Amino acid sequence: MNKTSLSALLPPARLLLLGYGHVARALLPLLASRSEWSGDQLGVRPVISGIGTRRRGFHIHAQGVEASLLERDVDPLYGFIKAGTPVDNAEAFIEAGKAVGATTLIELTTLNPHNGQPALKYIRSALQSGLNVITANKGPVAHAQHELQALARRQNAQFRFESTVMDGLPLINLAQFTLPGVGIRSFRALLNTTSSLVLSMIEQGYTREDAIARAKELGIAEADPWYDLDGWDAVMKTTILANTLLEGQLSPRMVRREGIRDLSPDEIRTAALADSPIRLISQAHRKHDLLIAEVRPGKLSKDDLLRVGKGTTSVISFETEAMGTISLVEHEPTVKQTAYGVFSDLVTILKQRAM
Amino acid sequence: MNKTSLSALLPPARLLLLGYGHVARALLPLLASRSEWSGDQLGVRPVISGIGTRRRGFHIHAQGVEASLLERDVDPLYGFIKAGTPVDNAEAFIEAGKAVGATTLIELTTLNPHNGQPALKYIRSALQSGLNVITANKGPVAHAQHELQALARRQNAQFRFESTVMDGLPLINLAQFTLPGVGIRSFRALLNTTSSLVLSMIEQGYTREDAIARAKELGIAEADPWYDLDGWDAVMKTTILANTLLEGQLSPRMVRREGIRDLSPDEIRTAALADSPIRLISQAHRKHDLLIAEVRPGKLSKDDLLRVGKGTTSVISFETEAMGTISLVEHEPTVKQTAYGVFSDLVTILKQRAM
Repeated sequence: MNKTSLSALLPPARLLLLGYGHVARALLPLLASRSEWSGDQLGVRPVISGIGTRRRGFHIHAQGVEASLLERDVDPLYGFIKAGTPVDNAEAFIEAGKAVGATTLIELTTLNPHNGQPALKYIRSALQSGLNVITANKGPVAHAQHELQALARRQNAQFRFESTVMDGLPLINLAQFTLPGVGIRSFRALLNTTSSLVLSMIEQGYTREDAIARAKELGIAEADPWYDLDGWDAVMKTTILANTLLEGQLSPRMVRREGIRDLSPDEIRTAALADSPIRLISQAHRKHDLLIAEVRPGKLSKDDLLRVGKGTTSVISFETEAMGTISLVEHEPTVKQTAYGVFSDLVTILKQRAM
Repeated sequence: MNKTSLSALLPPARLLLLGYGHVARALLPLLASRSEWSGDQLGVRPVISGIGTRRRGFHIHAQGVEASLLERDVDPLYGFIKAGTPVDNAEAFIEAGKAVGATTLIELTTLNPHNGQPALKYIRSALQSGLNVITANKGPVAHAQHELQALARRQNAQFRFESTVMDGLPLINLAQFTLPGVGIRSFRALLNTTSSLVLSMIEQGYTREDAIARAKELGIAEADPWYDLDGWDAVMKTTILANTLLEGQLSPRMVRREGIRDLSPDEIRTAALADSPIRLISQAHRKHDLLIAEVRPGKLSKDDLLRVGKGTTSVISFETEAMGTISLVEHEPTVKQTAYGVFSDLVTILKQRAM
């Protein structure tokens, strides 16, 4: 089928953006810049049907705004506040969005890591009403991946979350689309950029407090840096990867966790001077049918595959049955890479639809 | 659609194996071990309809042999010699294979790098008769990728070649399936394992001759090691990647080539002692709309991303517009990884068919 006839057949890809932080604001210009590409390659251009944010309201635009027409110099949210219809809350936003023809919810709200709420509630509602859902939110996936995937299947919808681990670097999609039947046996990874950065700054002579302050300044560490440094962020990611790539049924509390809180600067510097720096390592493997996953500090010897991870670089190595050991590296990611992961999930959904 | 109904609808995946060297012999047990997986996931199990080899004849098996039933202890070729029908040559093999219902040719003949023949001729014939083609043969792809892809499109067939660069590590498929619209701007890579191995052995004190002899013993270097050491192998791979990932229209002779022949052991050791070892680097980038690709020895400084490549490890770094820098590493590949790349191409073809 050629592109023109495809485009004529398919309704536009109407999207709802729930949450309007850094990732959403990086995603909109990316959607705009890839709008023509989407038209050419997928036969549809993305249209934004609503933007919802807890602080600034939930706004539905009945007709929708083509991503390519979003103004560059003005915060796109203003247009939705001005020309859209406000609704009361996230649930009403999903319902009203569905009513104006939205097909996909992009869920980018702020995270409550301990139970994945309220994002989990929103994702359930959206899937229940037959919307596809893309999330960059680790909580709901780590806590309820299998439930949400089963719900999506029943609704003939898609639930995608590539960005939750190493941003847009294809890990979830790699396994699904390009390493079929490879037999992943284990992985070992540096998945938390804040802890890598803080450790490498302490190695360079910073105090722990100064290193944390600097990581916040750089926009790497969250308001509560201990979510990263105590290993919770890595636990969420490890849970998602273990459940996705190693067919696990883990909840986050089943991942053994030890953060870097109790490491002294002396210990950190001594290890680095001995050319075996300490990093927060995530790993999972099967042993006698038991899936064992853990996050804990470990020393990286000279030949360790994870040594490529400098500064905020993330790295993962897989042991596979058919392909031996392979590694993927994401060098110094920013929010741009997270937005790209969301975009790549959208493309996956649109491709599926076009087939 | 559930798996059972899918399976009932689809004819078996009948394959022709042309060429019967290391890769083919590693592929057959892999197909056997993944037969059940294929049935479950794709609704079809692979069936071998013929094996053709220049030295031992071209054998068509009218009914076909299910991969899972291939005998483990006996060379599978014997079964085809015994129970199959011999034909005269590769062209007749393709024609007779098509007549018994084969849908995909797996082309694994030996390489003539200078013009890609005779593999190129076989691939053309197969595509012309409407077969899908998978090849692990760099020559035909480097010399005629765009022609063959256009021919495949006209015939509504697929032409796939993941294994030609870094074996089964998804590079071709990565760009096609999991990094949509990422905007790859350049790459830099160690793609030739023989030269990496020989250089690292010279660093360790081997003479060049001994290093080459050892690389042959290990089954890494070919009978003519200078195809690798003069950079031809890397040129083929660089051509394929540039044409696939950077939308190039290059032929191999448009890639600047400088091998490691003229490097003295002293020079190699001095660089390694200064912690900037020399490796054969492949790279390509666009400059003013011109695609520049080259293969030449270069020093890897301490922080070079390619430093992860020890021994025979292959590594590639991409600069992308939307995802910054990402790298992929294949640790010490063997023929097993090449066979997996062929298998992953087969899965891609079968998935497409099942949709």
